[in-house]
Amino acid sequence: MGGTHKPNILVFSPIQTEVDAYADRIRNSGFISVKTAKTLEEAEKYLPGTEVILGWNFPTQLLCKPIASSVRWFQSMGAGVNDLIADQSIPQNITLTRIMDQFGAYISEYVFLFLLDIVKDGPRMKQSQLERRWDPFISETLKGKTIGIAGLGSIGAELVRKARAFDMYVHGLSFSGKQATLVDLHFTPDQWGEFVKDLDYLVLTLPLTNSTYHIINQDLLLAMKPNAYLINVGRGALIDEGDLLSVMREGHLQGAVLDVFETEPLPKEHAFWSMPNVFVTSHLSGPSTINEVSNFFIENLKRFSSEQPLSGMVDRNRGY
Amino acid sequence: MGGTHKPNILVFSPIQTEVDAYADRIRNSGFISVKTAKTLEEAEKYLPGTEVILGWNFPTQLLCKPIASSVRWFQSMGAGVNDLIADQSIPQNITLTRIMDQFGAYISEYVFLFLLDIVKDGPRMKQSQLERRWDPFISETLKGKTIGIAGLGSIGAELVRKARAFDMYVHGLSFSGKQATLVDLHFTPDQWGEFVKDLDYLVLTLPLTNSTYHIINQDLLLAMKPNAYLINVGRGALIDEGDLLSVMREGHLQGAVLDVFETEPLPKEHAFWSMPNVFVTSHLSGPSTINEVSNFFIENLKRFSSEQPLSGMVDRNRGY
Repeated sequence: MGGTHKPNILVFSPIQTEVDAYADRIRNSGFISVKTAKTLEEAEKYLPGTEVILGWNFPTQLLCKPIASSVRWFQSMGAGVNDLIADQSIPQNITLTRIMDQFGAYISEYVFLFLLDIVKDGPRMKQSQLERRWDPFISETLKGKTIGIAGLGSIGAELVRKARAFDMYVHGLSFSGKQATLVDLHFTPDQWGEFVKDLDYLVLTLPLTNSTYHIINQDLLLAMKPNAYLINVGRGALIDEGDLLSVMREGHLQGAVLDVFETEPLPKEHAFWSMPNVFVTSHLSGPSTINEVSNFFIENLKRFSSEQPLSGMVDRNRGY
Repeated sequence: MGGTHKPNILVFSPIQTEVDAYADRIRNSGFISVKTAKTLEEAEKYLPGTEVILGWNFPTQLLCKPIASSVRWFQSMGAGVNDLIADQSIPQNITLTRIMDQFGAYISEYVFLFLLDIVKDGPRMKQSQLERRWDPFISETLKGKTIGIAGLGSIGAELVRKARAFDMYVHGLSFSGKQATLVDLHFTPDQWGEFVKDLDYLVLTLPLTNSTYHIINQDLLLAMKPNAYLINVGRGALIDEGDLLSVMREGHLQGAVLDVFETEPLPKEHAFWSMPNVFVTSHLSGPSTINEVSNFFIENLKRFSSEQPLSGMVDRNRGY
């Protein structure tokens, strides 16, 4: 890497141990000009001269101020960047990147845990053990069931691959259609009703954009089979949660697995927590682990230093 | 099928609804000479003239009596036939067959349910929901872990296929070595110690034979990594259960998933039921569903009628 430019880097996260861990890994990779901040005040202090930010919950209102004029690139620690895109205080000349291709394993393992728990009736197995009851019941199989994957990016593609290994029928819906050949049947965004009507499981891996906000509403939910399952590992606001609640209370849908919500953390009093056929988890299906985010960022730093195109470039117009 | 011989068939199971369901399916396939029995007395009554038995928990002591002299073929409803092979009252001239290739989907889905529940910490997710607690913890992934599969028959091969889709390292041990190329590293039965020492998960899919009885004993368990998991979907007596208990009570092994036991049903007072790191299920991972067993048997009946070799032939010397 002789002759490349090594930029001044600021790592921001409200969690002290995290910023330290990131800074260590970045320095160990040969980029030694790394500052860390976990509060707005610390960020203000270190922004002058900073060219690159690796951030989570960054006080973005600082980015349109003169102290941030040297910032050229903001790397988010997450995959979803709808907040950053909507944020008017981030100047357009700052390049935004998001983490990509790191979440396929995590999210697909999460999804298949729940698919298998549902189809094999894991809860009944555990209840039988609690009661010391010999209970050799026969469950169904994923084999032969139909899964629909909305969003065929790196996460969707990984779900397709695993669904194949389970001998499922795989339907997909995507905006670009670039990955249409991955699936048995491909649908476009004007075909949502057709897409959902034959599915045993609908998995949402879409980004949140103007075109996907509340895309799952009462009409679409009622178009699904009454015994289908809805699984959301994308963003909470893909679903109109009020519609989902009322439809499920009327007995439509066999269940839902929700890892993301319109309001996070999900409020303590929310009905989802206690519905027997709703599995609630805490936005943990695709965690930004320090190792994986560091590796992604360091690879991107090398590209930045040698003026190659960055991975995970965000297109503000496209919305992700 | 003109000119083929349609034999007299006896379907035996202690469960009335099962024998009726099998008999219906067999008759509907064109083999109309079907009797059913669910007790020793009924079997005695219908055995004279019977050429083919489809049976589960059959009173085998009848088979060496003159009333059974017309029996030429016994199709078991299960995959494991160690009991039938050991049974001295079954004449050697009765052909024994077992169900094959029907259990791969069932058993591999069962195994991956537990692998994912363990690695993603499904129980913690469910506990957090019970407590309405937002708890975005980071779990590990199957990706990058090493699974060892003992037995590379149709069930083992299906496990290999799914393990690949989860980007696991796959080691295998088999007696014949015929499927050695399926796995990253293959071991033979003289290499058990080498085989188990690097595994995160050891899955047993072996048949029970003289060479595999109590193959998993204290020495082998102690050769495993202290944080490894043992999963048994083969036969209970593959494991010396006393050794497993004492080794786990000393804190070796992180957990065990046991679907089969030396004594089934597992006695109510058995320690396994209440050990926090032992998952007990009721020999349900590879159920003989009526549809699948019927289909297998009817295909075999067609072969029998046209004097073609049967599927699932048991070799009494080999032991399965």
